[in-house]
Amino acid sequence: MSLSISPQKNTGFARPRLEANQLRRLGIDTGYEYVVYLDVDSPICRSEGFGPHSRLSLRVGEREILATLNLVQAGWLTIHEAGLSESAWHSLHPSPGEKVVIAHPPNVDSMAHVRAKVFGKELDAGAFEAIMRDIVAHRYSRIDMAAFITASSNHLTPDEVIALTRAMVQTGRQLNWDRPLVVDKHCIGGLAGNRTTPIVVAIAAELGLTMPKTSSRAITSPAGTADTMAMLAPVELNEAQLRRVVESCGGCIAWGGAMNLAPADDLLIHVERALDIDSAGQMVASVLSKKIAAGSTHVVIDMPVGPTAKVRDQAEAQALTELLTHVGAAFGLHVHVLISDGTQPVGRGIGPALEAHDVLAVLRNDPHAPADLRARALNVAAAVLELGGAASADRALAVATDCLLSGRAWQRFQSICNAQGGLRMPGRAAYQQSVPAPHPGQITCIDNRRLSRAAKLAGAPASPLAGLTLDVHLGDTVCAGQALFTLHAQSPGELAYAMEYVSRHPSIIGVEAFS
Amino acid sequence: MSLSISPQKNTGFARPRLEANQLRRLGIDTGYEYVVYLDVDSPICRSEGFGPHSRLSLRVGEREILATLNLVQAGWLTIHEAGLSESAWHSLHPSPGEKVVIAHPPNVDSMAHVRAKVFGKELDAGAFEAIMRDIVAHRYSRIDMAAFITASSNHLTPDEVIALTRAMVQTGRQLNWDRPLVVDKHCIGGLAGNRTTPIVVAIAAELGLTMPKTSSRAITSPAGTADTMAMLAPVELNEAQLRRVVESCGGCIAWGGAMNLAPADDLLIHVERALDIDSAGQMVASVLSKKIAAGSTHVVIDMPVGPTAKVRDQAEAQALTELLTHVGAAFGLHVHVLISDGTQPVGRGIGPALEAHDVLAVLRNDPHAPADLRARALNVAAAVLELGGAASADRALAVATDCLLSGRAWQRFQSICNAQGGLRMPGRAAYQQSVPAPHPGQITCIDNRRLSRAAKLAGAPASPLAGLTLDVHLGDTVCAGQALFTLHAQSPGELAYAMEYVSRHPSIIGVEAFS
Repeated sequence: MSLSISPQKNTGFARPRLEANQLRRLGIDTGYEYVVYLDVDSPICRSEGFGPHSRLSLRVGEREILATLNLVQAGWLTIHEAGLSESAWHSLHPSPGEKVVIAHPPNVDSMAHVRAKVFGKELDAGAFEAIMRDIVAHRYSRIDMAAFITASSNHLTPDEVIALTRAMVQTGRQLNWDRPLVVDKHCIGGLAGNRTTPIVVAIAAELGLTMPKTSSRAITSPAGTADTMAMLAPVELNEAQLRRVVESCGGCIAWGGAMNLAPADDLLIHVERALDIDSAGQMVASVLSKKIAAGSTHVVIDMPVGPTAKVRDQAEAQALTELLTHVGAAFGLHVHVLISDGTQPVGRGIGPALEAHDVLAVLRNDPHAPADLRARALNVAAAVLELGGAASADRALAVATDCLLSGRAWQRFQSICNAQGGLRMPGRAAYQQSVPAPHPGQITCIDNRRLSRAAKLAGAPASPLAGLTLDVHLGDTVCAGQALFTLHAQSPGELAYAMEYVSRHPSIIGVEAFS
Repeated sequence: MSLSISPQKNTGFARPRLEANQLRRLGIDTGYEYVVYLDVDSPICRSEGFGPHSRLSLRVGEREILATLNLVQAGWLTIHEAGLSESAWHSLHPSPGEKVVIAHPPNVDSMAHVRAKVFGKELDAGAFEAIMRDIVAHRYSRIDMAAFITASSNHLTPDEVIALTRAMVQTGRQLNWDRPLVVDKHCIGGLAGNRTTPIVVAIAAELGLTMPKTSSRAITSPAGTADTMAMLAPVELNEAQLRRVVESCGGCIAWGGAMNLAPADDLLIHVERALDIDSAGQMVASVLSKKIAAGSTHVVIDMPVGPTAKVRDQAEAQALTELLTHVGAAFGLHVHVLISDGTQPVGRGIGPALEAHDVLAVLRNDPHAPADLRARALNVAAAVLELGGAASADRALAVATDCLLSGRAWQRFQSICNAQGGLRMPGRAAYQQSVPAPHPGQITCIDNRRLSRAAKLAGAPASPLAGLTLDVHLGDTVCAGQALFTLHAQSPGELAYAMEYVSRHPSIIGVEAFS
């Protein structure tokens, strides 16, 4: 029960250590970084001169983690206790009565490579592997990750991007499909509502291709593909379940998070987003490592280009296309980039359920289905069919369109959903409020970023029925009072909160008065 | 008492907000970064989709801070409470019953400059000023600071170093001495026991120069100059007290932390140390900004060069000297660099009190005073006298030596200590243990880094009497069992802990057997 000095026996364990018998789970979610809480007067803090943000090694049985120290001054921890954040607790999962050994951390050797990169050195494959291994093992603090991201943002050669991609793949699981041709698609984000994946998978699978699609949940957007698909069928499949679905239906739309594909990327992306640093080399490694780990051989990249999209102009699109193709080739991955219009959201809904309704409408050939989503999905599907050899270039669009209009895509989609655990229909949010045009005129601009923000304030994606529906598109003419978009919320409070934001940003959708 | 949605009145406050009536001080020291703790089910977390590490604005009355979110899952915060880390609590210092307004954070505009730097752009003075202002206002998270440090490590032009230095000076207080000539000294660290400052100040002041020295406490070393000086006299002076001391004695040796000189540096340095990234440009800006803010006009830089010192070789020393001189000149600061031997610790003691004993021995002309510390202090003093015009180049060392040997330096030092609040004598630690030579031989190497580590494990600097005393220097011959160094500790536990480390590193001091 005491945090006492434990003179080391000669065990070959080469760091001084102290033992704290009592561990306390504090229920604090600190995200990626493990945090340990010690009383400021605990013997180890006093004798070691540890301060806030010191890094410590914590060892329970055979499990060791590196944690960041926070000091407790208020006396709610005794000097014989060590408090743990949720992530640290789950990683150490101590049994009742198990002891924790606290020590100075081992040197994180791969940080030497990060420092070399900071000073402009080109890194080799071994260096990237060591860095990715340590990141996946949670040995990097958030500032260590920030240093790696920053240092490698402006300076990755194509060879380095290849090495980084390979290292990211190797630190996780790799799926192998025992088939010569496995297709995939990816959208370089930044465009709300661009939910083509379920439609594309249904068409590709129906036409004989293998398309085991794994998608992510939203990180900063109102919905990720996995969030939307989860409104229509279970998406949290383990590998065996996923294989069964693909075996029977040719395709799936599952959440990739359970699959441990290129897990370093999932950790790095949080720091990249927080820093708002998005470099071409890291983006290419991030996108392609997931595809390679998923066992894909042919991938279509949908790249919306527009002033508020992730890729801003044609020059940027061209450079990114070349890097994607070059790096993909190093892994035998055939990459085809499809540049598309990124000036406005796609479809009507923004938010998990609302986007699912759009997807369903297209698949079911609803006459009111959003034409832009249908057109985009068919374009991506055609590119996938062509790349996968299921249709010739001049016929691919017609083949995809026929598959959709004939109802075969919808049948296939239902089969996939049922194989994943059962098709289900998303509901509608209880609270809705329209935002009217202030005067007659023409829609001249749509602020994608603020629209997404309004959808998130209304509750998306945590409240899955929440978000907004767009009632107009660029070029439409409207009367005064006509709805521009409609907010959907699952509670009056969330609706009021989103409305309050909208009322302070009257030009989220720009209406130019007729002259 | 409730965290409720507060529809915004048109106050011009352009961000959505929620009110939490109840603030709770949690007593958690998180260092530089303000942390706010909210229950995972609190309305603001649910409606905003905030996750761990989200950045939030907290406003109490007119005071606003940016804080990093930690989510509490254990139910020890109600959904109507917001818990605060110590730093956040002190910065907001809410009165009982005062409300906190929680909102999305304002955009930290200067991060756009950091991102530009990440991608290799040269920054102008305005950019550095904006970055330093935001850092001092605690608007940067630790990962933001890591990105700035990393991005500016390999790419600062001399003009950028000048702009960074100026920005660091401008974000804090600047002392003005109304004297044409104010001397200063600085040591580019990395050498334990090199505590020349008190001796140099005494000599310079005695010989008519103005030397208002401000020093730092230890960050990672067993003692800083301020820690050592605090064993001999009070060092926490405010500006008025410091001026009175300098007015009456010509010099002082005070802690700089109370003076708010170039405070951005104090914040950045913690992240630099954690990353172990030390770039020439940042080091020069750090050192010179403190000197310029302190009102110095002439500064001697002691630069120990050696394989385990901060500056490793002559080429590095030369480049650093040129940058220091060039940047200093831009501010009218005369910089003289004194390159010195950095191969072994200076003096005998390592630790606040033990170094203070060495300083006292030199000042009092004790025949057993460490000759190397005396020689180094006299060299630095001579350089200060020459740079300050108090002695010619060929006479400066003789003048300094005479001042010391005559007892005048000791008299002056006592006056300074008394003006600072009273001279006092440091004690001796109760527990001591010698580390013997394993066999007869010659001392061929001393591991500075591990010696410092042993001194810290023994308790320095938190236990001010702790540390170690060196009993040999390079080149000495020893018998078997003769003491190599002696550990000093204030508790048997700390002594045992340091001994345990020493026993696992038998070659901290290398003894080569006679052949």
